[in-house]
Amino acid sequence: MNRNKLDINYQPIAWLGNRVKILDQTRLPSQEAYLETSDYREVITAIKELKVRGAPAIGVAGAYALALGALKIEAKNTSAYLTKLRSIAKAVASARPTARNLSWAVERMEKVARKDKAIERIKSALVSKAVKIHTEEAEATVRLSRFGAVLIKNGSVILTHCNTGPLATTGYGTALGIIIYAHKQGKKVQVYADETRPLLQGARLTAWELKKANIPVTLLTDSMAGYMMKQGKIDCVIVGADRIAVNGDTANKIGTYSLAVLAKENKIPFYVAAPASTFDLSLKSGAEIPIEERNMKEVTHFRGIAVAPGDVSAVNPAFDITPARYITAFITEKGIIKRPFAKGFENIE
Amino acid sequence: MNRNKLDINYQPIAWLGNRVKILDQTRLPSQEAYLETSDYREVITAIKELKVRGAPAIGVAGAYALALGALKIEAKNTSAYLTKLRSIAKAVASARPTARNLSWAVERMEKVARKDKAIERIKSALVSKAVKIHTEEAEATVRLSRFGAVLIKNGSVILTHCNTGPLATTGYGTALGIIIYAHKQGKKVQVYADETRPLLQGARLTAWELKKANIPVTLLTDSMAGYMMKQGKIDCVIVGADRIAVNGDTANKIGTYSLAVLAKENKIPFYVAAPASTFDLSLKSGAEIPIEERNMKEVTHFRGIAVAPGDVSAVNPAFDITPARYITAFITEKGIIKRPFAKGFENIE
Repeated sequence: MNRNKLDINYQPIAWLGNRVKILDQTRLPSQEAYLETSDYREVITAIKELKVRGAPAIGVAGAYALALGALKIEAKNTSAYLTKLRSIAKAVASARPTARNLSWAVERMEKVARKDKAIERIKSALVSKAVKIHTEEAEATVRLSRFGAVLIKNGSVILTHCNTGPLATTGYGTALGIIIYAHKQGKKVQVYADETRPLLQGARLTAWELKKANIPVTLLTDSMAGYMMKQGKIDCVIVGADRIAVNGDTANKIGTYSLAVLAKENKIPFYVAAPASTFDLSLKSGAEIPIEERNMKEVTHFRGIAVAPGDVSAVNPAFDITPARYITAFITEKGIIKRPFAKGFENIE
Repeated sequence: MNRNKLDINYQPIAWLGNRVKILDQTRLPSQEAYLETSDYREVITAIKELKVRGAPAIGVAGAYALALGALKIEAKNTSAYLTKLRSIAKAVASARPTARNLSWAVERMEKVARKDKAIERIKSALVSKAVKIHTEEAEATVRLSRFGAVLIKNGSVILTHCNTGPLATTGYGTALGIIIYAHKQGKKVQVYADETRPLLQGARLTAWELKKANIPVTLLTDSMAGYMMKQGKIDCVIVGADRIAVNGDTANKIGTYSLAVLAKENKIPFYVAAPASTFDLSLKSGAEIPIEERNMKEVTHFRGIAVAPGDVSAVNPAFDITPARYITAFITEKGIIKRPFAKGFENIE
């Protein structure tokens, strides 16, 4: 197998020179529809509405959004240009609060902008940087997947949550990338995919991606995962991440914390797979990670149809924090980080 | 408060002399539609399709189904009559496998049938017995609720799963009955209701019943419950049960096991509320409780709309087993049973 060749036959994000093309994930699996735009505000909206989602993918989309914005800025001088760029960068970075990858990508883009004085060269440098971020992030997932595949034994039954494949990363994937990589190595693997309420990324996207990869997948509701573990049906749990603090506390899709507790209770390894761009070593613990609270209609309604009495209230935290003590190891593009995590984290940034 | 008066303004099951009237729970909360029938096979179908559901309620529905069947049997002699009755009893008892209450009710009905020799008197005795089972089960939930309410402090925030109110029991409810009772005592209570995938009994039914009772309710996906506990937002968890073995292992709606593990991890009391009819002391442990596996379309589809790729497979266990070690106490109509459970269980039957 060619280590860096991505043999994935769909492209969640593509750069078309002065436009970005995004596979609309809200319409999967029933439709493969694309959004094509040169307007950075449309990309921000796509990020907010989860047309593009997954921590690494929104980092890449954010970089392209800033590149699109940068191309269209009209300014008398470099200082005015950079002021306008700053304003766009802020808007992009705040599209969604939890995933570190978005602000990480924006910060890297802004650093490039500050290296030159000529507006046209800055524009060009920003486009190049966005493309580079995309390429590097995609390649990082291939390396991450190769490292992680070592942990997957032939015949493994793996539980995963939400969606962490090519769609979520623009590369091979994080948790799902590892599974796909192990499968391509010829290992027999079987996946239980949590449907992942409220937005069903597991049912809609993970099942779709695993079908495309010809990997056996069985869907279950989030509430069934613990019982499957208890019955001895799960060999390991692998999930992705949206932000990882320096102590190892990890933000990921709501429900991850419950899985981690249940895995520990049932003595099942619990792995978190994420590229370096997801680590936020400036944060001491998970308590400092902002958790996005989304519209309660995502819980009370399903595809526009009310499933509960009209006036009922709901909570809708999109993520939760899994304390480091429940995590067996982190899998990154730089290798597997086992306990004590602090040592391995030193080489992340 | 009148201890035995049920001030609930809707009736999930009613006996109309030679017909039974069932509130179709699959159409709630959008419609209050009723099924009225004198055909026991329609009642069996209603049980299978969850038009009537909840362990105590299907016990009552099962008793009425057998009464309806008994009224229509034509037989030359008592022996032939009882043979036909046995066949109907088997069909009723096997409508759903997990809840003990259904076979419990059928066994009590059959015992009555064997006490007489005259067919007409047997018919009459069976109708009387079904009505008696209904009345006693409803009253049991009032007593259970009164005992359980002692555990609810003023200002409590309670997490519950699935639906355990009047709809599920024909009385006050089990877990929800306790909450309703505490509220009627003037205690301030607030409920977090798991939506309870796949069939959303929490979103559709529990939210509806708590709204009717004027009790503040907040909906959440099953995957959010652990995170709410972790954040210190939950004072206790109360659930119902479908079958309880002699060692205290408890079958209840899928997802209950996960909640119990998460409650223990977060040092939150975890209570199981159930009438005596739910206890199956002939079973040594939860391993002997049959778990109903339902159609996978309940997971892959949402109100008839596919949410996953068309050919994906799914598991759909309707219940799970919570080992006794996670349960703080059982709440029954005979009182609260604390550890060691064996002692309290002696007085159950």
